[in-house]
Amino acid sequence: MRPALRTAIAARLPILTWARRYSRAELSADLIAAVIVTIMLIPQSLAYALLAGLPPEAGIYASILPILLYALFGTSRALAVGPVAVVSLMTAAAIGGVAEQGAAGYAVAALTLAFLSGLMLVAMGIFRLGFIANFLSHTVVSGFITASGILIAASQLKSILGIRAEGDTLPSLLPALVAHLPASSLPTLLIGALALAFLFWVRRGGLKRALVARGLAPGLADVAGKAGPVAAVVGTTLATWALGLADRGVAVVGHVPQSLPPFTLPGLSPALLRDLFLPALLISIIGFVESISVAQTLAAKRRQRIDPDQELLGLGAANLGAAFTGGYPVTGGFARSVVNFDAGAATPAAGAFTALGLAFAALALTPLIFFLPKATLAATIIVAVLGLVDLSVLKRSWAYSRGDFAAVLATILATLGLGVEAGVSTGVLVSLLLFLWHTSRPHVAEVGLVPGTEHFRNIRRHTVLTDPSLVTLRVDESLYFANARRLEDLLLNRVAPDCPVKHVVLMCTAVNEIDLSALEALEAINARFRDMGVGFHLSEVKGPVMDRLKRTDFLQHLNGQVFLTQYQAWQALRPAPAPLPGAA
Amino acid sequence: MRPALRTAIAARLPILTWARRYSRAELSADLIAAVIVTIMLIPQSLAYALLAGLPPEAGIYASILPILLYALFGTSRALAVGPVAVVSLMTAAAIGGVAEQGAAGYAVAALTLAFLSGLMLVAMGIFRLGFIANFLSHTVVSGFITASGILIAASQLKSILGIRAEGDTLPSLLPALVAHLPASSLPTLLIGALALAFLFWVRRGGLKRALVARGLAPGLADVAGKAGPVAAVVGTTLATWALGLADRGVAVVGHVPQSLPPFTLPGLSPALLRDLFLPALLISIIGFVESISVAQTLAAKRRQRIDPDQELLGLGAANLGAAFTGGYPVTGGFARSVVNFDAGAATPAAGAFTALGLAFAALALTPLIFFLPKATLAATIIVAVLGLVDLSVLKRSWAYSRGDFAAVLATILATLGLGVEAGVSTGVLVSLLLFLWHTSRPHVAEVGLVPGTEHFRNIRRHTVLTDPSLVTLRVDESLYFANARRLEDLLLNRVAPDCPVKHVVLMCTAVNEIDLSALEALEAINARFRDMGVGFHLSEVKGPVMDRLKRTDFLQHLNGQVFLTQYQAWQALRPAPAPLPGAA
Repeated sequence: MRPALRTAIAARLPILTWARRYSRAELSADLIAAVIVTIMLIPQSLAYALLAGLPPEAGIYASILPILLYALFGTSRALAVGPVAVVSLMTAAAIGGVAEQGAAGYAVAALTLAFLSGLMLVAMGIFRLGFIANFLSHTVVSGFITASGILIAASQLKSILGIRAEGDTLPSLLPALVAHLPASSLPTLLIGALALAFLFWVRRGGLKRALVARGLAPGLADVAGKAGPVAAVVGTTLATWALGLADRGVAVVGHVPQSLPPFTLPGLSPALLRDLFLPALLISIIGFVESISVAQTLAAKRRQRIDPDQELLGLGAANLGAAFTGGYPVTGGFARSVVNFDAGAATPAAGAFTALGLAFAALALTPLIFFLPKATLAATIIVAVLGLVDLSVLKRSWAYSRGDFAAVLATILATLGLGVEAGVSTGVLVSLLLFLWHTSRPHVAEVGLVPGTEHFRNIRRHTVLTDPSLVTLRVDESLYFANARRLEDLLLNRVAPDCPVKHVVLMCTAVNEIDLSALEALEAINARFRDMGVGFHLSEVKGPVMDRLKRTDFLQHLNGQVFLTQYQAWQALRPAPAPLPGAA
Repeated sequence: MRPALRTAIAARLPILTWARRYSRAELSADLIAAVIVTIMLIPQSLAYALLAGLPPEAGIYASILPILLYALFGTSRALAVGPVAVVSLMTAAAIGGVAEQGAAGYAVAALTLAFLSGLMLVAMGIFRLGFIANFLSHTVVSGFITASGILIAASQLKSILGIRAEGDTLPSLLPALVAHLPASSLPTLLIGALALAFLFWVRRGGLKRALVARGLAPGLADVAGKAGPVAAVVGTTLATWALGLADRGVAVVGHVPQSLPPFTLPGLSPALLRDLFLPALLISIIGFVESISVAQTLAAKRRQRIDPDQELLGLGAANLGAAFTGGYPVTGGFARSVVNFDAGAATPAAGAFTALGLAFAALALTPLIFFLPKATLAATIIVAVLGLVDLSVLKRSWAYSRGDFAAVLATILATLGLGVEAGVSTGVLVSLLLFLWHTSRPHVAEVGLVPGTEHFRNIRRHTVLTDPSLVTLRVDESLYFANARRLEDLLLNRVAPDCPVKHVVLMCTAVNEIDLSALEALEAINARFRDMGVGFHLSEVKGPVMDRLKRTDFLQHLNGQVFLTQYQAWQALRPAPAPLPGAA
């Protein structure tokens, strides 16, 4: 094989690189990590499938082939792919619009969603469109994840209470919860509350401390702490079975097929594809952003590299896998990936072993969870998602800038009040509009020379030298159509017809672009200054901007000069120093 | 009256300022301008009303009260308000979606459109939202006006040919024209072609030259040149009447009511308001942009000022006036305003006198235009709008920047292919997306010291001093969410783990803003550099950006310093010069 081709294939199939040098040490590290993640993933996969409105086995199926495919194509060595909370909620919201929960079409729509999302991710990877995710501001994502966490926790209260209450938004969910409150099932509530209390205790390190106090090695105690959800599952399942609680109104998981993932086909009717297109796009982008963030954070800690475009291919392959094996949209999850990393996962093989663990669970363990109370799974979800809720982003953004705060607040309110899709869209829109608004009203400083240097700063903030006949304005923004007219007003207003200004210098240190509309504004300013007998000069024009200006006749018509530095402009345009008094 | 109140009222009613000092000289200048504009406006108002799909008198009515109201509230001394070509076309497109031409609801919808547009303009004026118009790039507007001109000219061919051919877009219009071509009316075509030839001859100065050759004073010949369309109207009307062409298939204007504008009420059904909301918004913004551009151009020539927010009130009042007197949306027209200015209009009173002229026409002249051929009006429109077509904007933008070219081309193609509303929307969207795309991929230069100065420039473009242990990167863009991740990749990639770099300086001359997402990226970069033992410094941070950074703990954690100038950073961070060889 030619070396270039081999390199190209290796870049597309990262497994070829790491598998060749796979060592015994890596194998044992990967196996340990896989066991811990499998223990975490079994209850989570069941729970998130229920959150998505799907039968519990969909969560297990979504954790087998998708993980294997990501191990083939992904570049992160620690990312744990599979069902995650936010994407499960988005799946429920998306499919809720096209099919009834429990209806035959619902599971098929979930496959279609995974299929579309997989195609979009692969396409974005091939066409190197990963940059689209950059337009999701980090603060907007924080707000969205926080609001989704609140929404998910609220949606799980119904299972803890043993009542029915549907709703995609807080305003629809809360009244339904309150209305059905009298119908609460006491045994369910007891199990749910106990599971919740136990899981919070484990999460806060209670179990680990207790085990250490009883003499267990801290490392082993740590692993046992991760098994908290499994302990809750086992305990409440046994209690429900032994006490016959399923007959006293405790909803249980019930029959789960005992098999490997089935081969499934997503629905491909044009109406379904059209209805799910936008939700699939949002799920793809949110899933990618969440996944790449955790992958890059973890990779940076070990000085490894993540290739965003290859990650798109890996996640896309995982979703396509989910679509054909009875799953639903998946992505890299934050909590499980951190656990995987901390447990020492050295290569994507850890993920492959996790998939084997889940396959074993699908084949052997499913009969054992017949009596698993749904309230326990709800408790698992609540404890997991409350870790996502971080309202401090509101405080931080308020302290930092009103614009960021407005974007976060709008995202949180829209997500809670209008649902996940409206939430993401609002966040993107508000943050882009605020950026445009900001750039359309640039900060403009009149600058003067810092004495003893060649440096120019704002006359309002620094003690600087100025000259009444020479005005230098520094416009702190690229000049483009949205601020072109403002620039014109600003420069023309600065120079009143009867003021002593002889030269105006536009200092272009912060002008990264001049578009055609702005060029026309500059031409108008130039013509006006020429009429007034005022020189119009530019200084510190950047290379790429200058290249472009040279392609026009603006510089020929310029009623002044272009100076390489502002200091040269100052030296050239300042009137000769007046003779000292008495020197004449 | 308290002086502050008086000033506030004077600002809102500019007439109070100019009317108090109105002189005899201004009166005679205004009267002359009014006569010339009235002569131009009579055929144009009839023609544009037909273009909008309305009866001809709607154009006359739209030229009476609206002009008077603008004279009260407007700040431009030369702007000629009334029916204009592009807004008439947009009116036809908007109303075509809700009512059949000729049906009773059609004229009512036109009133509603003027009413909504008036309300929007007034609201934008009160809330000082005129800046919204800034988001319409000048190049996009040029492209839109050009494409509209082509579309209008094509739509008038049917009247010249005497056939029926409807269509809001070139792809729907052209096949209809071709299909009906065999049904052309020869007498109509003759009249249309003659009128067209005559008007082009007049427009190119043929009439003026002929009159001057016959001994007429050039000034008077110039005025006569403006009367070209009236001459065409009179000539073809007489010919049609004398030769009985109306019975030979020449479509004529027919009966026009002989009255002052009637009092009318716009339709206010919720469905109609909803359907016309977006078209009214587009018409308002396009109308405002067109009007303010010509008003500012003309005002600049006489060193007068235009207040954009007051202009919004003036145009809003004019449109409300049109809505209640049988008109349709109006704005300041380019061609008539230039004529008004050149003819010496000194105050808005010129507009008021024009309105009186039109009122006289409505009362006295309407019976005389019964036999006016519609083909003549179509010829008037074609000659007027071909003056708007300026395809050189394509060439200019191609030469200047691919981004501007893409925006103009998209606007022109969308306008021709999808209609006026899609055209404007496409232009705005494409230009905004291109700007965002551009800012998300900032230009980054590694800079070095220009010898003998304190100035730093791109090492690839200039011969500069550098030091292998000190890297200075100048990012030519504000740091915000869309480029935060890129910034991180860029800085971290520049410093390979084994390179001799000890200090990295981020030179912030062009960083006009750092948003919260970018701040988090800087924190991540800082942490990574600290791990690598590399110092991370900032230089030339602008005042507003520094103010914001000081509100966070970023500067406390910064693994380096913030330098006022890049030169200070260079002096502080450069290693002490190595001793000269042999000096030891």
